[in-house]
Amino acid sequence: MLTDYGIDVTTFESSDRIGGNWAFGNPNGHSSAYRSLHIDTSKHRLSFKDFPMPESYPDFPHHTQIKDYLEAYAAAFDLKDRIEFRNGVVHAERLPGGGWELEDQAGERRRFDLLVVGNGHHWDPRTADFPGEFTGESIHSHHYIDPHDPLDFTGRRILVVGLGNSAADIAVELSSRSLQNTVTLSTRSSAWIVPKYTGGLPADKYYVTTPYLPLAWQRKFLQKMQFMAGSNPELYGLPAPNHKFFEAHPTQSVELPLRLGSGDITPKGDVARLDGATVHFVDGTSSDFDVIVYATGYNITFPFFDPDFISAPENRLPLFKRMFKPGLDDLVFMGFAQATPTLFPFVESQARLLAAYAAGHYRLPADDDMERVILEDQQKYTGHVLDRPRHTQQVDYFLYEHDLRVKEIPAGRRRAARDGPPVLAGRAG
Amino acid sequence: MLTDYGIDVTTFESSDRIGGNWAFGNPNGHSSAYRSLHIDTSKHRLSFKDFPMPESYPDFPHHTQIKDYLEAYAAAFDLKDRIEFRNGVVHAERLPGGGWELEDQAGERRRFDLLVVGNGHHWDPRTADFPGEFTGESIHSHHYIDPHDPLDFTGRRILVVGLGNSAADIAVELSSRSLQNTVTLSTRSSAWIVPKYTGGLPADKYYVTTPYLPLAWQRKFLQKMQFMAGSNPELYGLPAPNHKFFEAHPTQSVELPLRLGSGDITPKGDVARLDGATVHFVDGTSSDFDVIVYATGYNITFPFFDPDFISAPENRLPLFKRMFKPGLDDLVFMGFAQATPTLFPFVESQARLLAAYAAGHYRLPADDDMERVILEDQQKYTGHVLDRPRHTQQVDYFLYEHDLRVKEIPAGRRRAARDGPPVLAGRAG
Repeated sequence: MLTDYGIDVTTFESSDRIGGNWAFGNPNGHSSAYRSLHIDTSKHRLSFKDFPMPESYPDFPHHTQIKDYLEAYAAAFDLKDRIEFRNGVVHAERLPGGGWELEDQAGERRRFDLLVVGNGHHWDPRTADFPGEFTGESIHSHHYIDPHDPLDFTGRRILVVGLGNSAADIAVELSSRSLQNTVTLSTRSSAWIVPKYTGGLPADKYYVTTPYLPLAWQRKFLQKMQFMAGSNPELYGLPAPNHKFFEAHPTQSVELPLRLGSGDITPKGDVARLDGATVHFVDGTSSDFDVIVYATGYNITFPFFDPDFISAPENRLPLFKRMFKPGLDDLVFMGFAQATPTLFPFVESQARLLAAYAAGHYRLPADDDMERVILEDQQKYTGHVLDRPRHTQQVDYFLYEHDLRVKEIPAGRRRAARDGPPVLAGRAG
Repeated sequence: MLTDYGIDVTTFESSDRIGGNWAFGNPNGHSSAYRSLHIDTSKHRLSFKDFPMPESYPDFPHHTQIKDYLEAYAAAFDLKDRIEFRNGVVHAERLPGGGWELEDQAGERRRFDLLVVGNGHHWDPRTADFPGEFTGESIHSHHYIDPHDPLDFTGRRILVVGLGNSAADIAVELSSRSLQNTVTLSTRSSAWIVPKYTGGLPADKYYVTTPYLPLAWQRKFLQKMQFMAGSNPELYGLPAPNHKFFEAHPTQSVELPLRLGSGDITPKGDVARLDGATVHFVDGTSSDFDVIVYATGYNITFPFFDPDFISAPENRLPLFKRMFKPGLDDLVFMGFAQATPTLFPFVESQARLLAAYAAGHYRLPADDDMERVILEDQQKYTGHVLDRPRHTQQVDYFLYEHDLRVKEIPAGRRRAARDGPPVLAGRAG
């Protein structure tokens, strides 16, 4: 989008390849993809609007196909020439009069007028902080590849902690009877479980919100219908969720309910404490384990910023339209959201605003207006859910995209026409 | 049931244990259970009416739990003392005046007045008869244990033939990305696919037929509703079924549609011919394979009968109430049906008739009446389906049980009261 507007762009990439999370075995260590990973979003929902996935793709592509798709995208729009591979940003310092001085991996100091941060939020493992000590092996789902890599998961007593998509996928994979493990799944917050298919169609085809009805009403409707999907984790012995249906990102798995209902996975509530090989649960029971797999999510981390300058404690990063930090008009964040039901078109809609801004067609509101909108949006998207690190970035894609396209970008264009375009160029000297 | 009536029973068992199909690794070779096998019927539907499964059991018990349940049943009714283990029947000869002379494994010849055949119909593998020759490895699902036993199924090109429950389970297991196989699934007749869970409850809880409405109407209703279950295999690239929904035993799998929709299993129609490592399909495509897994069902076989006397060519075994062969009043078949949705209570209801018969309380109709009823019942249960070996034994459990309990057993009691009891005792001298 930036090159479409004729803007001079340099991209810093710490890896030797594109794809980030979708580059399986990414040498920069930032891929969380396990060998069996398939996208949870159907290809119809996942595709960038300007670059549909191939007809030949299955409904739920494998990670290798997502990587191929991103490669094809980069080739189609000739993006690779603008990427400096193996040259991530080590440090980013804001200049006194605005603009940025970056230090790259090569040790060079380079100046830019506008900094766009898209370093992802699924690469810095967050582990649970249980009291006591566990003497068996521990691994975070980020490092899990398959039942034999990096640990041997055969004939072992395994505890999987968490109930997100990775927790579900890994618990299902390791509970395959052919591996002869025993698998226990422990969750604190629990989660609603939705199938990938409903009535033979990718379930996310049914998930469409409209900006013309209050989101709360639409959630209510889904909450009334959820019994049809068998989404209540209590049906399968898991704890009751600490939130209502579709108030937070649901876990997508058709296999998990079956494995729980077949006795192949033992459901448990939260862990109370660790003691040697023994794990005590809050229900008063305890069991011995050989391995704990922490599928407990990720921290939002910016290693190139001074922590005092910008950080996201407990994953809280309040941003105007999930992009701008009031007071810093030459810094833009991209992709820092948990957009339901799809991420790629979400980033595409952000890119539209970014490019309009960088080209001077869009002007930001005043700082205190932005602060007010941040609170309003937060209330709209996440105000109804418990305040947990996993859910701080919840956004409804359909409402967000409609808001940017129909309201915010036109409003910014009107502000630019009235008060003049933003002046970014020349700041870094 | 026979011992309840005080009837003297001898049971011949070729194995050293009870359980038959459910005795994993049964030394008599008659178990088709693979390591990951779970029953497709929920425990509520599967339980014998007089012996419910333990509350602690999961909805869909593992084969080891079914075996434990049968052991508990045998213990509760003190059945094991009446079983001669490691002593199957080698040959059964009908005596001129009725009654039977059996030759057992020990080489002894023994006489009985009544012969009850319950040797099962899921132990003699039926393979597909494709033209040409395949030079890779071939295995029948009957011999499949797990991805490493008896063949190594890692990094291989695998063709699974069939679309019954075993085909679905094995294709799903072998297509796990961690095994790095490529898996193709070929089916000729195709099948409707139903989930094990619907709305969070075992799906077979919803399947209840009533004797008070025509079965055809009830099938029509299910056919109208099937779109909700996403049961049409065409949704996932498989061929259209050669029968309507619930006209034949559906395939139960929540994982198969997902694996097809994730590109982990490639769907194909029928095989046209084999040629070395290459398999040609009827759609004109071809691929090379390392292994073919034939999940193509079983023959109904009676190795202890002279084939001219009784056999089941193409699995056709017309029997009065699936139990009696007209003209042979001292021979009873047990369990020779594909009862939807459950087998154990089906056998239980047959046992009720058997015991009434053996005790002299129930009298069979005249031979030509039985022949007429055989045709009527066949029309009712299977007349609507294509004539295929897999479907010859289709029976609706609810209608069958109701028919025996409310109509046939009382009718037989009335016949016995009017025309005298059947005389079985003393025939074998």
